[in-house]
Amino acid sequence: MNFFQQEITLRPFPRGFHLITSEVLSALPELQQISAGFLQVFIKHTSASLTINENADPTVRQDFESHFNVMVPENASYYKHTFEGSDDMPAHIKASLLGASVTIPITNGSLNLGTWQGIYLCEHRDYGGSRKLVVTAYGK
Amino acid sequence: MNFFQQEITLRPFPRGFHLITSEVLSALPELQQISAGFLQVFIKHTSASLTINENADPTVRQDFESHFNVMVPENASYYKHTFEGSDDMPAHIKASLLGASVTIPITNGSLNLGTWQGIYLCEHRDYGGSRKLVVTAYGK
Amino acid sequence: MNFFQQEITLRPFPRGFHLITSEVLSALPELQQISAGFLQVFIKHTSASLTINENADPTVRQDFESHFNVMVPENASYYKHTFEGSDDMPAHIKASLLGASVTIPITNGSLNLGTWQGIYLCEHRDYGGSRKLVVTAYGK
Repeated sequence: MNFFQQEITLRPFPRGFHLITSEVLSALPELQQISAGFLQVFIKHTSASLTINENADPTVRQDFESHFNVMVPENASYYKHTFEGSDDMPAHIKASLLGASVTIPITNGSLNLGTWQGIYLCEHRDYGGSRKLVVTAYGK
Repeated sequence: MNFFQQEITLRPFPRGFHLITSEVLSALPELQQISAGFLQVFIKHTSASLTINENADPTVRQDFESHFNVMVPENASYYKHTFEGSDDMPAHIKASLLGASVTIPITNGSLNLGTWQGIYLCEHRDYGGSRKLVVTAYGK
Repeated sequence: MNFFQQEITLRPFPRGFHLITSEVLSALPELQQISAGFLQVFIKHTSASLTINENADPTVRQDFESHFNVMVPENASYYKHTFEGSDDMPAHIKASLLGASVTIPITNGSLNLGTWQGIYLCEHRDYGGSRKLVVTAYGK
């Protein structure tokens, strides 16, 4: 049983959805030693999140941002937590809808993703700054 | 430490929410050898997803389909990714809202699910075809 | 490789979002023996869920409740599964949007959470009663 863990800090990304598969993979080359196992990526924040989705067409990521802004609007009349800005409370809700982690099977030393799957950083704040990830690979 | 991994292809399911607990279990009988551990099911697609929900009343699954179609509508004016059909971009968004994997505790050789819990395949495309899953069980 | 698993029953919580990090941690003191690994918390129900979000300001949890009630309303005209009360079908949908489990890295015997992250029990029923969790820690 192998267990490799690394904490990394991403460069700041603008608000929106961004492919970070290559950043994650380069943080933990040891996953190539695992024949069957998992990679987990965990984000240590409550106003940014992680998900897996389409890795090819940038308009998919733009449509994610547009849709989440409609589904979780700023300045809703029922928000009480408003003192950190109008983008803050929607960011918390979006983060829980998408989740703080992704866990991907490893097979024969590589991520066993589908052809069109990539890892997204979902930055829900206007100025979220650098985000910290814990990247862990384990298996036999 | 045991690690069992299998890739399976489901028969095509129509658009909607479908119980697949038995298909998953029959793919990996080795999970009966695990006294404490996990089963992870991962879907290798970006327009179908997996979740855990009520395993008894089919109208629950119908209401999921109805609600997700309202919450993530087709033909929203802000979608730019439209060339694969009106069901495509909503499918990507629904997939990330529900997630690409479920991870269920194994206790004494069985899934430790609640009485009413089952695994759903969430097929978000009109004609999604066969979907590939990676099914992994591990533990002691 | 260590694998510690415990099933616990929470006291009944009212409908809404509640911090349960300390209840979870006190259930499994063995996680302090793990230098690199994971804690998974799994809820054995389909009308309550778990998520990770802001651990400081109670109005964040109130705004979660307000927003989810708008995004997944009671008494929608398209619901067919209505015989368990108007809060039941929305509870199932909310549960799948948020998820049945959270998985958090363990580093040097502690949860490797961000400063502002805590574990929420999301109680979606008016009278959900006691909820059962399976709490598992594993790693090296």
